[in-house]
Amino acid sequence: MSDRTTVQDAELALLLEVTGTPKPGNVDRERDFADLRFEHFMAGAVGARPGLELAADGTRLGRAFERAVAGMADQSAGNTQFGALLLLAPLVAAASEGDLTPAGADRVGRATTVADAADFYRAFEHVDVAVDDPPEGMEPLDARRGSEAVPTLEARGLTLFDIMTQSADVDGIAAEWTGEFRRTFSAAESILADDGPVPDRASRVFVELLADEIDTFVVTRNGHDTAAAVQRRARAVLDGEADATELAEELVARDVNPGTTADIVAGALFVALERGLVV
Amino acid sequence: MSDRTTVQDAELALLLEVTGTPKPGNVDRERDFADLRFEHFMAGAVGARPGLELAADGTRLGRAFERAVAGMADQSAGNTQFGALLLLAPLVAAASEGDLTPAGADRVGRATTVADAADFYRAFEHVDVAVDDPPEGMEPLDARRGSEAVPTLEARGLTLFDIMTQSADVDGIAAEWTGEFRRTFSAAESILADDGPVPDRASRVFVELLADEIDTFVVTRNGHDTAAAVQRRARAVLDGEADATELAEELVARDVNPGTTADIVAGALFVALERGLVV
Repeated sequence: MSDRTTVQDAELALLLEVTGTPKPGNVDRERDFADLRFEHFMAGAVGARPGLELAADGTRLGRAFERAVAGMADQSAGNTQFGALLLLAPLVAAASEGDLTPAGADRVGRATTVADAADFYRAFEHVDVAVDDPPEGMEPLDARRGSEAVPTLEARGLTLFDIMTQSADVDGIAAEWTGEFRRTFSAAESILADDGPVPDRASRVFVELLADEIDTFVVTRNGHDTAAAVQRRARAVLDGEADATELAEELVARDVNPGTTADIVAGALFVALERGLVV
Repeated sequence: MSDRTTVQDAELALLLEVTGTPKPGNVDRERDFADLRFEHFMAGAVGARPGLELAADGTRLGRAFERAVAGMADQSAGNTQFGALLLLAPLVAAASEGDLTPAGADRVGRATTVADAADFYRAFEHVDVAVDDPPEGMEPLDARRGSEAVPTLEARGLTLFDIMTQSADVDGIAAEWTGEFRRTFSAAESILADDGPVPDRASRVFVELLADEIDTFVVTRNGHDTAAAVQRRARAVLDGEADATELAEELVARDVNPGTTADIVAGALFVALERGLVV
């Protein structure tokens, strides 16, 4: 068993995630976007670390997340791992409490407060993150408003878990928060049951996840039809009817980026490392 | 200017070093050896961090280095960044004292004690590192003896700087210690004066360093003639008469690994990051 700490495992998970290749549509060891490159993810992972330390130390979860995002954004490409950090924050907190289980992570999420929700909104001030337009009546809570949304949060008494609940049907990370992190823990078990180099396992589980459910980040940026097509293509890769590398080249060329699926792989790698995955 | 700490810059330097490609003969973003792969360098960088923290906190330098090596070795491939950590330890200590200059790093090295030398020998117990047979009269101080060498160190009153002095003509990292880290600081300035993505700059300065001086790790593992041939080939790349990627493929296929030159690139990246290099 490794001597790495929980925070080291979280940081390594972010690094291993971006290393796995092919991960169709994402920056990986073999592919960059023009202004979003591999090295930005490395700087993002290193920069996020102080925030992850706060999550492990029992600091308020929203504050830990906001600090992780601020550190992540300390490179020239903007958003690299916002969603992955939103997933890792409760997982790291649960692990540091000795309860890295679906129930343990769920408990951490449900314990969040209005202050955590305010921190979450402040995190959007550090980077541009692609988000959907809010549903009717929720305009004051558009994430792009940043801290301007805080008075509304306070007036309505909304916790970070409440915010996740409201977003769960349009955001795959929020759905993890409100669904006991089902896909994350399941993917971790797939990684552990697989064999071969860890980045290859990350690539395989990425394609499985992409085939399994629609990527909400693609829905947000490219629309539902594109996201559904990406899911079908991933299924064809799984069925041996399409090539993962070709799909990767095509999605990068079309700027179609299944980032939510990559975020879940990062969370799954963290859980797998904590459960003894050997690098 | 980045908000990264000195330790974050050191860790990021290790990650950026292995990302730069092509770096002929080394693991890089596009090349692995069979049992020494990219992900092992990531785990090595993350694992080294507690030791780098000690170096920044003013802990005895040898102890900080030994802890960094122990953490680095917490992955399945053995030695990844031993030489880079031997170079980074005094640089991190100098930086945390606010004096990351040739004179500052030199002062840190010269201040080492017999206890630091003992730690250095203990570090060899964590990993197999390719080293030369010791010169006549130095057999009791063969690095491969690990802590068995400590009584001899103590009897002879040898500090870590003394050990570096004895190795400086056969080891390029020891030569940095005893030569005011000349190549490291010079390469840092080259990186800062260059432009384009940081990993590309790392690749270019690697080839410049390889063309400039013989790689002592290649001498140790493959002999002087091979090392001299590698240097000539690197010069041909610089002169536009050979292709860096072809040289990279060939050296990896022949298991010729200019690791000392890569270590100096890692040190140079650290200095450049501390001096404002933007990722």
